[in-house]
Amino acid sequence: MTTQTIATLGLDEVLIAAETAFESWSAVPSAGRARHLEAMAAAMEVHADELIQLAIAETHLPFARLRGELTRTVFQLRFFAEELRGGRFVDARIDHSDPEWPMGAPRPDLRRMLLPLGPVLVFAASNFPFAFSVGGGDTASALAAGCPVIVKAHHGHPELSARTAAIFLDALEESGAPAGVLALIHGTETGIQALKDPRIQAGAFTGGIPGGRALFDIAQQRDVPIPFFAEMGSNNPVFVTPGAAAERPAALAEGYLAAVTGSAGQLCTKPGTLFVPAGSQIIEHVRTAELPSATRLLTERIEAGYSREVAELADHRKVRVLSGNIPSESAGPTPLILATDIAAVLENPDLFLAERFGPFSLVVEYEDMNQLLMVARRLDGQLTATVQATDQCDVHQLLRVLAGKAGRVLWNSWPTGVSVTHAQQHGGPYPASTAVQTTSVGTAAIQRFLRPVALQGFPDHLLPPELKDSNPFEVPRHLG
Amino acid sequence: MTTQTIATLGLDEVLIAAETAFESWSAVPSAGRARHLEAMAAAMEVHADELIQLAIAETHLPFARLRGELTRTVFQLRFFAEELRGGRFVDARIDHSDPEWPMGAPRPDLRRMLLPLGPVLVFAASNFPFAFSVGGGDTASALAAGCPVIVKAHHGHPELSARTAAIFLDALEESGAPAGVLALIHGTETGIQALKDPRIQAGAFTGGIPGGRALFDIAQQRDVPIPFFAEMGSNNPVFVTPGAAAERPAALAEGYLAAVTGSAGQLCTKPGTLFVPAGSQIIEHVRTAELPSATRLLTERIEAGYSREVAELADHRKVRVLSGNIPSESAGPTPLILATDIAAVLENPDLFLAERFGPFSLVVEYEDMNQLLMVARRLDGQLTATVQATDQCDVHQLLRVLAGKAGRVLWNSWPTGVSVTHAQQHGGPYPASTAVQTTSVGTAAIQRFLRPVALQGFPDHLLPPELKDSNPFEVPRHLG
Repeated sequence: MTTQTIATLGLDEVLIAAETAFESWSAVPSAGRARHLEAMAAAMEVHADELIQLAIAETHLPFARLRGELTRTVFQLRFFAEELRGGRFVDARIDHSDPEWPMGAPRPDLRRMLLPLGPVLVFAASNFPFAFSVGGGDTASALAAGCPVIVKAHHGHPELSARTAAIFLDALEESGAPAGVLALIHGTETGIQALKDPRIQAGAFTGGIPGGRALFDIAQQRDVPIPFFAEMGSNNPVFVTPGAAAERPAALAEGYLAAVTGSAGQLCTKPGTLFVPAGSQIIEHVRTAELPSATRLLTERIEAGYSREVAELADHRKVRVLSGNIPSESAGPTPLILATDIAAVLENPDLFLAERFGPFSLVVEYEDMNQLLMVARRLDGQLTATVQATDQCDVHQLLRVLAGKAGRVLWNSWPTGVSVTHAQQHGGPYPASTAVQTTSVGTAAIQRFLRPVALQGFPDHLLPPELKDSNPFEVPRHLG
Repeated sequence: MTTQTIATLGLDEVLIAAETAFESWSAVPSAGRARHLEAMAAAMEVHADELIQLAIAETHLPFARLRGELTRTVFQLRFFAEELRGGRFVDARIDHSDPEWPMGAPRPDLRRMLLPLGPVLVFAASNFPFAFSVGGGDTASALAAGCPVIVKAHHGHPELSARTAAIFLDALEESGAPAGVLALIHGTETGIQALKDPRIQAGAFTGGIPGGRALFDIAQQRDVPIPFFAEMGSNNPVFVTPGAAAERPAALAEGYLAAVTGSAGQLCTKPGTLFVPAGSQIIEHVRTAELPSATRLLTERIEAGYSREVAELADHRKVRVLSGNIPSESAGPTPLILATDIAAVLENPDLFLAERFGPFSLVVEYEDMNQLLMVARRLDGQLTATVQATDQCDVHQLLRVLAGKAGRVLWNSWPTGVSVTHAQQHGGPYPASTAVQTTSVGTAAIQRFLRPVALQGFPDHLLPPELKDSNPFEVPRHLG
């Protein structure tokens, strides 16, 4: 399929192609799927310059950031390929038959592994035109799992999406992947129609809470509900202990502002709140720091939303401007740091701890550690929560509360820059995600698109290679 | 807490107790939770005679079956305890920091493990008053995960439920478990109220589709949706190839009828349909076999539903009685085997392949293997699908289709008698389960009540033991 044929295919044809592709794609051995992912990675690299130029034009993100994101996306495809070759992702378990099984009845021969769910619908994000878009983590992990993918392009970068898809489709065709394993669709209504279609077996989304929840609801209200993995909103609070504030106020202010203003604050792990001891020198460092000037945000809707939301908060009687300027039509979406005290936050946590997408953050002064515990207990689910402390600080209880609220808890680091690794967890309790038990970054993301199947009493010649006694691919297995 | 205090606690007090217990129960090391599960197992064994007598009175199930089920339930508690000591269930992953990480940015130190979700609400089943009730698989796996459990008793065995809970509560108190870790509530409305409560973090259910779906919908429509693991309905079709039908017709008829009539057909894995070659000797064996006489079913509602549903199907013009009698008010809920041909089934699969709970099954005659493939492709999600064949039969394609439809696929065995093992999979695509990616039987069932958390950059003294470099509990870990 070429760019042209994508544009001319109707939704039903795309769905038919995905359903047909599922039979062949899920039958491609893992090592074969790995080669196809690597072909996608190589093609993206070959076309990097062209893709980055398209991305700059459509997203206003700077070259260096997009170059880094493309490198990350290419790496991610290869990393999933490597995971496929390892075979751990199928979670193979073998229980040989056991006539003496203490359950009271003989244990049959039972062998279990994870199989792909079926065609997956991916809703691309605005803020990562490579890493969470056509060939991003959702697509890579679903393809790795053995599921065909239909990507609903984000309206913020339609041409980049189309070109990326075309490059991938050519690469997949050339490497001999089944037709229909990847497709691109456009438009919210088309996306919703696809989500309601019984051929779609799972959905993934990265974006804001209203959109994510609406799609989640559609997925759950189908005659046959399907897993819907929406990564949505996060405030990503950072808690600075008195010890850390005294030890390294300048470095904390600098790290904080870099995390808030990087990519113009358009990261889902941007620290939305910084809790500092009242009167800490950090405040003065933040106040006097030079913030970047206003820059275009991803879309006009995001710019308008940003300006409205932060101007509203700046108007609150308990809030003062600490650094930067309140956005206006003439100034554009300027970076802004507001400040308040913890009593105000505890009075109205929903207002103060909401996510505000863009180069904004709130500094909150507190008096004692108990207040931090109180606010931590009031938090909604988060992608991340960070503690900046020293080894001498007693933060056990705070860390424990935060581990109950966030998918990732950080110590003396900043939450932006989500590393693609085996132990990464990018997700969290609602509303950080609609699927608290999963991650959308890292190799564990493949598990979202798999389901367990047990085979009982099978003769060896009918078992898949991963479950044969001979274990020809040498996958790691649990023998019970 | 004793039986008396359970009865007098209001729902809000139960929820408060569960929330409070979560802090302490989740902090009990895995080996400690294992000891408490073993205390529950021992107490159940001590009180076996009393409990079985109560169960006989309330469920009409026979002694031998209940004795076996209790043994299974006791084993299950101990099996989860053993799994806790192994530590594999936390899926520990450690990525040490790596300045040369090829993603384009250094990899931080990231360590990930699974933590408990929070208080869990379990809706007990009618048909397994031990194994899927107060101390059954859902309760055992949620407690193992570190979650307090509130069990909504099944109305079919309220006294058994209360007595079982009291025995467990005494055992837990004696073994030093935190108060509030287990509670029992009664009544549908109370159960729904609990499910809507923000303190409940997950739900589990075993029963029929209407009830399971209604509860699933409530769980998904909360302000904060939660995972809801409903194991619901299954037809459990069995496909007999011409080779098998020719080789062992008597044995197949015998195994089939035993699986259909055992526990009066009140098993979620009872074979609801047997596909046999047209004119097979199996049919004659089934026709002439002696079926058990009518027996009381679990509840009056189940008896009425059974009689109505099978009488309706028997009335269908394409259906004939093969063995047994059509239930009536005078005869009671008699075992019944009906027969039809595959053309009728393909014309109306929803009618013929629905689950009918009780000692009923349908024999379907087919002409060729293609028809089996056609019907397999039309199947809804199933807990099990079975192929009875010989090594010479070419059933690759049929097995492949069935693996896409069922959580467990069996070869030359019968689906009843779900073994509690590591590789067991009891679940399947909707409507077999609302959570296709999980199992409600076997050690993997623990994963339903856990969520991943990554810790980034933590100093060793703040890491949980499972993630410390020293690995004091020697849990299996993935080092990236």
